[in-house]
Amino acid sequence: MDSKIEKTLKSDRIYEGKIINLRVDTVELPDKKYSKREIVEHQKAVGIIAFDGKDRIWMVRQYRKALDKMTLEIPAGLIEPNELPADAAKRELQEEVGYTCENINYLFDTYSSPGFTNEKMSLFLAEDLKESKLENDEDEFVYRESFEVDELYNMILNCELSDAKTIIAVLVAKKYMEESKL
Amino acid sequence: MDSKIEKTLKSDRIYEGKIINLRVDTVELPDKKYSKREIVEHQKAVGIIAFDGKDRIWMVRQYRKALDKMTLEIPAGLIEPNELPADAAKRELQEEVGYTCENINYLFDTYSSPGFTNEKMSLFLAEDLKESKLENDEDEFVYRESFEVDELYNMILNCELSDAKTIIAVLVAKKYMEESKL
Repeated sequence: MDSKIEKTLKSDRIYEGKIINLRVDTVELPDKKYSKREIVEHQKAVGIIAFDGKDRIWMVRQYRKALDKMTLEIPAGLIEPNELPADAAKRELQEEVGYTCENINYLFDTYSSPGFTNEKMSLFLAEDLKESKLENDEDEFVYRESFEVDELYNMILNCELSDAKTIIAVLVAKKYMEESKL
Repeated sequence: MDSKIEKTLKSDRIYEGKIINLRVDTVELPDKKYSKREIVEHQKAVGIIAFDGKDRIWMVRQYRKALDKMTLEIPAGLIEPNELPADAAKRELQEEVGYTCENINYLFDTYSSPGFTNEKMSLFLAEDLKESKLENDEDEFVYRESFEVDELYNMILNCELSDAKTIIAVLVAKKYMEESKL
């Protein structure tokens, strides 16, 4: 295994930001040649599959500057310093969708794009929601809306819903519903 | 819809790299306040669900500097200038797994993390593969291995397989297999 690992010869820190940092590592490859690796360091995040009844889940619509368009995504957000992932998931659910949930179940982790970033999202499943109040972050303008899981699934196939974490969430929700019916 | 869009007041180009660029946009929010958006511009990519027989798909094992560990991912790669996505998918399949495929089917697109990057991956499904020769890129050290889809699915639940595009691919492959059996 060791022969496959890239040895860091130099690490240049290019940018230290609010949500991301950028560094460029010069590495020695297994064949002793050199290469550059551009790496975006990103805070850890959570995403929530929030069931609104039996076959609907909550989504948020928001403008994303990186894509210059409105997207439809599951509620999600960054984990704050010293915050447990499950607490971050409960907080984001309340902030973005306006519901609380006593028991939130951890499902699994996903890395959004290991080729250039360490961004990791822990995915949670929330049921039996209780209506609370919306508490959007100051610089967030998100609009909640619940959808049938099957409708969201068709939106993936039509490229109307393209956010990776949301695609994962919809596929997992569909499987969960099908298994619950067996 | 217009009131939800963030108006760009200033765009600072921080880094122009090999695979990514970084810019920081100063935007005006719908409430007229200002905010910063850190945006990583990334080349478009392709990923391939490559069936090896009926219930197995090809995976590649590789070291990822961003995570400092070996990962298991579907074959994937960047689209070259003027290359069609389907041609990029066929090329990556040959380079990383050593198989050719006459007909490769486009499934849908995914954005890996719309909160900070425009990275988009087009997902393809390949069947009826023909063995060819491995042609790894110069600075890539990837090791092919085929797995049963059900085994990969369990690896997701155990957090042994965490790459987002690969999780999507495995969930889609599982669904595709189940529907083919109906």
